[in-house]
Amino acid sequence: QIIDAIEAVLGGAGPLSGRRVLVTSGPTVEPIDPVRYIANRSSGKQGHAIAQALRELGASVTLVSGPVQIPDPDGVVVVKVETARQMLEACQAALPADLAVCAAAVADWRVAEPAAEKTKKAEGVPPPTLQMVANPDILATLAAPGPNRPKLVVGFAAETENLIAHAKAKLARKGCDLIVANDVSQGSGTFGGDDNQVHLVGPHGVEDWPALSKLAVARRLAAHLAALLGGTK
Amino acid sequence: QIIDAIEAVLGGAGPLSGRRVLVTSGPTVEPIDPVRYIANRSSGKQGHAIAQALRELGASVTLVSGPVQIPDPDGVVVVKVETARQMLEACQAALPADLAVCAAAVADWRVAEPAAEKTKKAEGVPPPTLQMVANPDILATLAAPGPNRPKLVVGFAAETENLIAHAKAKLARKGCDLIVANDVSQGSGTFGGDDNQVHLVGPHGVEDWPALSKLAVARRLAAHLAALLGGTK
Repeated sequence: QIIDAIEAVLGGAGPLSGRRVLVTSGPTVEPIDPVRYIANRSSGKQGHAIAQALRELGASVTLVSGPVQIPDPDGVVVVKVETARQMLEACQAALPADLAVCAAAVADWRVAEPAAEKTKKAEGVPPPTLQMVANPDILATLAAPGPNRPKLVVGFAAETENLIAHAKAKLARKGCDLIVANDVSQGSGTFGGDDNQVHLVGPHGVEDWPALSKLAVARRLAAHLAALLGGTK
Repeated sequence: QIIDAIEAVLGGAGPLSGRRVLVTSGPTVEPIDPVRYIANRSSGKQGHAIAQALRELGASVTLVSGPVQIPDPDGVVVVKVETARQMLEACQAALPADLAVCAAAVADWRVAEPAAEKTKKAEGVPPPTLQMVANPDILATLAAPGPNRPKLVVGFAAETENLIAHAKAKLARKGCDLIVANDVSQGSGTFGGDDNQVHLVGPHGVEDWPALSKLAVARRLAAHLAALLGGTK
């Protein structure tokens, strides 16, 4: 167990040996009041599988995860958070890193003023209006130029329509090096399911992958990222 | 397995043998768009334990549950729902019943107009405002006078302040026979935890129970309800 813990910090043997990697996974959860919250249908399966696959290639992996119902991957440092702001803070604490893979489904918005006590339904009082404010953009923050920018920053685009167009726009807007685009519309079964069909959207074009298990997607992505990082150590 | 299924419908031996019981449990989940939703921190542990305890006393139990991460109780018919409106429909389909225990944390409000596609964050577009509308009141609907009203309708009050006062007001407002009041403020550990401290608020006063495991609360409550139903079959 002690050896596991040391290996989790130091990494193992393989093409990513000696590389520090940050992976985000799962949803974020944004409070409305002490009992109600806004969340999303991310299961964390894809992000956790990526953390596992990068660890299998020898990387030293920190996994920053929102609330999920799946086990922690072995040999990985896991940091558990709830909100987008907590996730950003945990990511920044995990830097410097050679590679960041932002697979979490981070809430774009949070409730502007969460209530300190449970909001009561009362006779004659109309239902509330929830005013949202923008959350910090974790992917754009990590991808911004600066001394702490990982060599490679990978984002995810989860869309229900116009997948590739949205992913290309996101690549440019966020300043990251690669977008893994996947369809999360209800018919796709992606959210919560065990399979995923992704498209790698980079500055030089789009690579369409077949439908694979999330672990197979993760292993192929890890090998791809190891190759991209290869000469830059 | 076939015998289990028959017993789940017919009930078993015990003081509630021959009684039909409806229990609701867990949160409800209300969509914002295909990937985002509003939920609450109910784990379903207390409601599921009540279904189990009523079944142990011989009742024929239908458990209507929102999304939870705990196993179905044995010998109980489980109906899984997401939204408050689906929960109401499933409850009405489970009538007639001798007893209804509404332990679910039903969302008081839902988003007035959920988006058909994932709402996109866009440059220069302010964060959205979520206009809420009232959900149907399942407890009040089940407790309303009528030919289908269960003999005994029990509600829960989950509060973060003024617990007993809120529970007394709820008892009167909903028209139910008993309120089980519990403190769900963050310090209490009730939401998601294994223990609970409840107060039975009825028309004749308040009974304070000690902190107990949720299963012990459920068994004591089941025995109490069996006694109340005793002579009325």
